Amino acid sequence: MSLVVANALTEEYAVIGVDILSEASYWKIDSINKGQFPIKADDPKIELFYANARKKQNLYATFDSYAYSKADIIIVDINLDVKKRSSEINELQGYEVDLNPFRSAMETIGSQCKPDCLLLVETTVPPGTCKHIVQPILEKCLGNRGLKTDELKIGHSYERVMPGPNYIDSIQNFFRVFSGVDEKSKRATETFLRTVISTKEYPLTELGSTNATEMAKVLENSYRAMNIGFMVEWSRFAEEAGVDLFEVVKAIRMRPTHKNIMLPGIGVGGYCLTKDPLLASWSKQNLFGSKEGLPQSENGVRTNDMMPHFAYQQMKRHFDRSLAGAKVLLLGVSYLNDVGDTRYSPVEILYRSLMTDGARVTCHDPFIEFWDEERLEVEHDLEVVMASSYDAIVISTGHSLYKGNTKLIRAICENNRSMLLFDTIGIFSSEEIEQLKRSVRVKVLGRGDL
Amino acid sequence: MSLVVANALTEEYAVIGVDILSEASYWKIDSINKGQFPIKADDPKIELFYANARKKQNLYATFDSYAYSKADIIIVDINLDVKKRSSEINELQGYEVDLNPFRSAMETIGSQCKPDCLLLVETTVPPGTCKHIVQPILEKCLGNRGLKTDELKIGHSYERVMPGPNYIDSIQNFFRVFSGVDEKSKRATETFLRTVISTKEYPLTELGSTNATEMAKVLENSYRAMNIGFMVEWSRFAEEAGVDLFEVVKAIRMRPTHKNIMLPGIGVGGYCLTKDPLLASWSKQNLFGSKEGLPQSENGVRTNDMMPHFAYQQMKRHFDRSLAGAKVLLLGVSYLNDVGDTRYSPVEILYRSLMTDGARVTCHDPFIEFWDEERLEVEHDLEVVMASSYDAIVISTGHSLYKGNTKLIRAICENNRSMLLFDTIGIFSSEEIEQLKRSVRVKVLGRGDL
Repeated sequence: MSLVVANALTEEYAVIGVDILSEASYWKIDSINKGQFPIKADDPKIELFYANARKKQNLYATFDSYAYSKADIIIVDINLDVKKRSSEINELQGYEVDLNPFRSAMETIGSQCKPDCLLLVETTVPPGTCKHIVQPILEKCLGNRGLKTDELKIGHSYERVMPGPNYIDSIQNFFRVFSGVDEKSKRATETFLRTVISTKEYPLTELGSTNATEMAKVLENSYRAMNIGFMVEWSRFAEEAGVDLFEVVKAIRMRPTHKNIMLPGIGVGGYCLTKDPLLASWSKQNLFGSKEGLPQSENGVRTNDMMPHFAYQQMKRHFDRSLAGAKVLLLGVSYLNDVGDTRYSPVEILYRSLMTDGARVTCHDPFIEFWDEERLEVEHDLEVVMASSYDAIVISTGHSLYKGNTKLIRAICENNRSMLLFDTIGIFSSEEIEQLKRSVRVKVLGRGDL
Repeated sequence: MSLVVANALTEEYAVIGVDILSEASYWKIDSINKGQFPIKADDPKIELFYANARKKQNLYATFDSYAYSKADIIIVDINLDVKKRSSEINELQGYEVDLNPFRSAMETIGSQCKPDCLLLVETTVPPGTCKHIVQPILEKCLGNRGLKTDELKIGHSYERVMPGPNYIDSIQNFFRVFSGVDEKSKRATETFLRTVISTKEYPLTELGSTNATEMAKVLENSYRAMNIGFMVEWSRFAEEAGVDLFEVVKAIRMRPTHKNIMLPGIGVGGYCLTKDPLLASWSKQNLFGSKEGLPQSENGVRTNDMMPHFAYQQMKRHFDRSLAGAKVLLLGVSYLNDVGDTRYSPVEILYRSLMTDGARVTCHDPFIEFWDEERLEVEHDLEVVMASSYDAIVISTGHSLYKGNTKLIRAICENNRSMLLFDTIGIFSSEEIEQLKRSVRVKVLGRGDL
C-alpha cells in the first residue's frame, strides 16, 4: 500500500511508513531507507514502484510516531491478531482476540494526529471496530489535547491484496469497498481512494456504514475459508471412496452457479483465512452481544487447520514403512504459490510431523531463504536439491517453478525407484502422473488411488 | 425426463413411464394418459413437449412392471428419501436413509428386464450405490432367472433439473456428467445421452467411475446447501449489527472468486438440498465404513432447516404485538420462485408457527391450487387476495409475479397503516422499499434496519 500511495495516479504524496520497533520489523525500516525493499514476490512491479519512489524521494520509513503529527492522511495497516489454542494435531480448541495492541496504536495516533486528518483503517478488524473502538479513542485523545473532534474523519476500506505475481495490481487495479463513520468521512475516503486506485476500470463500492465494510471483509475471507474447509471434508471422502476429486470438481465447475467450488489441497495458510472467521465470530459475541458466534465459519477454520495433519497421515499410509531416518524433500514451504510468505503455512505442520517421526528433511522454496517460524535455512536452487536422492519428495506449495517442469519430472524419475512422490497440491497433469508412475510411486492428495 | 426422451433429438423412442400405485401418484398415471400433464411450471416447453408426444403417441404411463420386460433402456428416476427427526424449531436431530424401497424397485426391474438392457440410474443416490447395491441385485436377479449377466449395462448420469421457467432446458440443454460400472456401460450410456441432450453445445463429461458421478451430484447440492447455510449464519449477524447484507453481498460478488456467494433468504426447500448432504454423509459411514460423516455438510442442512424459525422470530419482533387473531397474508408457498412445488417448503414452518400462535392466515401462490402437505386450498388470484386488508403481508416466495409489480405495491400501500410488510426474500428494490415505507412498516430479512 505504501508503494501504491507513493506511486499515486493523480496526486503526489509524501509517504512515511511507520512501524513499531520489534525484532520482526526493525530491519525492514532500515532496509526501506537504504534502498532494499523488504518484501520478495514474483511481481516485477514491486521493484519498479520502489525504484520510482526512491527516485522521487517520496517514501521514507521510521519508528517515530512524531510522523503522525505531519500527516493529512493516516492509513492504518497494522496487524490485529488472533491467538489460537490448538491440540497436537492442530485442532482449534479456543482462541482470543487481543485488541490491546490495536487500541494502543490508536492512542498513539490520537496523541499526535492533526484534528482534521483522515484516519483510514485498512486493517481487517472485527466488525464494529471503527464505530465502537477507533472513533471513541480518537475523540477522547483529541479532547484530552483540548482539540475539536468535529473535523476528524474516520474511514474504512479494506485491501484485497493477493500476494504473488499480481501483488501491486491487487491493490491498484482492483475493486475497492469503502465507507466512513459519517458523511464527511465517506467523502474524504472516496476522494483519497480515487487518487491511488484505477477507479475508472474498477469503480469504488460505497457501503452504508463501516460496520458493513468491516463485515464485508471478514465475510469475503470466511467464504473462502469455509469453502476450503468444505472441500477438505470431501477430500477425505474421495480418498475413502477411491474417487478422483479433481475430475469431479472440474465437472461441477461447468455450472456457473458452482464456479467457485474449490480444489482439494494441503490446507490453508497465510494471515487472513486462518483467522478472519474467528474475528467475525468474536465480534458477533463481544461487540454486538450475541449469545452465539458463527459456528459454521469457525468450523471452516477448524477443519482447515487439521488438513496438513490429515495429509501427513495419507503420506504415512502410502510410504508404508517407517519415516525414521528417511530422506524427505519438501518442495515449497510458503503457504501460497509464487510468493515468499510462510505465515501460518500448512507446510509447517507437515514439516514438524516429519521431524517428530525422525525423518531427515530438506526444504526448497524459490522465494524463501530463511524460514522464520522454523529458524531454518531453505534451499532455493532446485537443481542443487534435485542432485540428491530421496525416499520421498513432497510437492507442498504450488509454485509455478514446479508446474510443467520437465527437468523436475526427469530428475524425480531418475531418483531411487522405491521413492514416494506425494503431491499435496495436484500440480501434475494426468499425463505427467502416468509418466512419473512408470518410475516412482505416486500419491496425489484428493485423487483417490488414480 | 420422460418428455425429453419422448422428444429426443436424434432418435425416436417409445416412452413408458412406470410408477407404483400410491395416493401421491395414481392420478398422475391417469392424467398423463388422458391428456393432462400433471406438473405445473412456468415453462411453456412442458406443454409443447407433452402435446408433441401426444401427437406422436409415444408417451404412455402405467403402474405395471411388465413394462420393464419390453425396455431396451430403463431410466431410474425414483425417489430415495431421507427420514429426518427434527425438534419443534425444526432443528435436525437425526436421520435415516432407508434404501429398502430403492432395493425393492431394483428387484422388480431385475425380475423383468432384458439381460442386455441399459439400466441408467438418474436418481440421486448415496455414492457407491450403483457398484455396491444396484449391480449385485441386478446380477443376482438375472442369475436367478437363469440368464447371463455379462451383457447387462449399468450407467449413472444425474439430472441437473432446475424447476421453473427453464425446466425442460435444464435437462435437454445443459451439461451432463455420466459414467458406468464398466466400459460397455459407459459407452451405452454415452450413446443414449447423445440422442436426447444437445451435446454439441453442452458437451458430456465422462468420469472414471459411478462412485465419482454419484459423488459429484451430492457434492454439487451440498455445495449449494452449505453456502446457503453459511449465509443464514451471516444473515443473523447482519441483523444484529444493523448491516444491509444485500449491499455487502453485491460488493463481494464483484470478485470473480466470490461470484457464487449466496443472498440471505427464508431458508432452503425442495427435494434435493434438504437431504443430499445427508445422503453423502450416510454413504461415507455406511457404504465406505468411515467412522466420521461429513459434519460441515450436515451442519449446512441443520442451519438451513432452522432458518424459517429464525425468520418467524424476526417477524414477531417487528410485529411488536400479539399475532393471535392477526390477519396475515403469505405471498407464495412454493419453495422456489416460478414453480408449483411445495416439497419441504420453508414456508411450511412459517405457516405452522403463525397457526400455532393463532393468526388467521391466507395463502396465495400463482402455481398452487392445493397445498398437499398442509391440506389447504391456496388462492391463486392476486387481485382477489389484495382486495382484503391485513395486519401483516409476508413475501414468502420470490415469484416473478410479485417482483416489480406496481399494482401489488399500490395495493400494499392502500392497506391499513399499521400493517407490517415482511419481505423474507428481498424482492423489492431500494426505491420500492422507500415508497412502501411511506405507507406501511417494512422489514426485509437480512437488510438490517434499513
